[in-house]
Amino acid sequence: MKKLSMSELGRLDVSAFKSAEKIPVTIVLDNVRSLHNVGSAFRTADAFRIEKIFLTGITGTPPHREIEKTALGATDSVTWEYVERPEEAVQKLKDSGYHVAVVEQTTESTSLRKFSMPEKKLCLVFGNEIHGVSDPVIALADQALEIPQSGTKHSLNISVCVGIVIWEISRQFSV
Amino acid sequence: MKKLSMSELGRLDVSAFKSAEKIPVTIVLDNVRSLHNVGSAFRTADAFRIEKIFLTGITGTPPHREIEKTALGATDSVTWEYVERPEEAVQKLKDSGYHVAVVEQTTESTSLRKFSMPEKKLCLVFGNEIHGVSDPVIALADQALEIPQSGTKHSLNISVCVGIVIWEISRQFSV
Repeated sequence: MKKLSMSELGRLDVSAFKSAEKIPVTIVLDNVRSLHNVGSAFRTADAFRIEKIFLTGITGTPPHREIEKTALGATDSVTWEYVERPEEAVQKLKDSGYHVAVVEQTTESTSLRKFSMPEKKLCLVFGNEIHGVSDPVIALADQALEIPQSGTKHSLNISVCVGIVIWEISRQFSV
Repeated sequence: MKKLSMSELGRLDVSAFKSAEKIPVTIVLDNVRSLHNVGSAFRTADAFRIEKIFLTGITGTPPHREIEKTALGATDSVTWEYVERPEEAVQKLKDSGYHVAVVEQTTESTSLRKFSMPEKKLCLVFGNEIHGVSDPVIALADQALEIPQSGTKHSLNISVCVGIVIWEISRQFSV
């Protein structure tokens, strides 16, 4: 077998991406400190055709050299918006009819293995590397989702966490 | 709902991890340049109880400050070994009865959505950020696995790729 080149992969260009059908999922990054994690979230959102990313609080915004190191241009294809207070972004999405799921280990989390897509569009919130999703956002959430883990560490890296959750949810769509 | 503390999560300590049952999967990192990606692979391997990681070629090895930034101690729990030539590590695993799957977009790749665990133990190879899996390793592979993507970019970040593939395979085990 032979590795495929970029042209053989038949990827979309930015304008085709903008008009292509998306999966009905919007991501909120709630005070994510690492620009590597932000860039990686953009690249994952591009690969699985997510509607939009909200960047909130201390989360860095494009254009930024450190974000581009991992986004590699996905900040051009994926729609994004900065909102200072994460709870404001989440409330706005709730008001537009989104189901809000925070990705967080809580007393009432659902395993990602058991998640099924709601009838509504989905807002997924990923929190700060140390403090997790902020309390005002947890108070607004319809659900908490948890990636079941069986090792020694508290949690996965955020960029990995975004990848796994989006992968799992995208299996429910054929986009 | 309330966020869970580390003690409430009931994670294993390093010695309990060492003796705990693992999923029958070994990872080979084939000339992975980014120490962030290496650290993240350790952290994912810890979370899903992978047997072992082979670090090969230019892939950095612990102890290293840049690896620890993302591994956060998972280099202590997860067993690893450095082998200079990736094809030597892969041949050794084949000789011990492993099924070798390279994660690579090739003319003969299987979609990760359609992967089912072989009867044998599994060796998963992840390649360099630019050049992918090296040709001598592709020549040894039993299979190529591809994460189906529908965006503008060539591929996902390696740390995300490791996370998604391990997550998908770990659903076939109850460890």
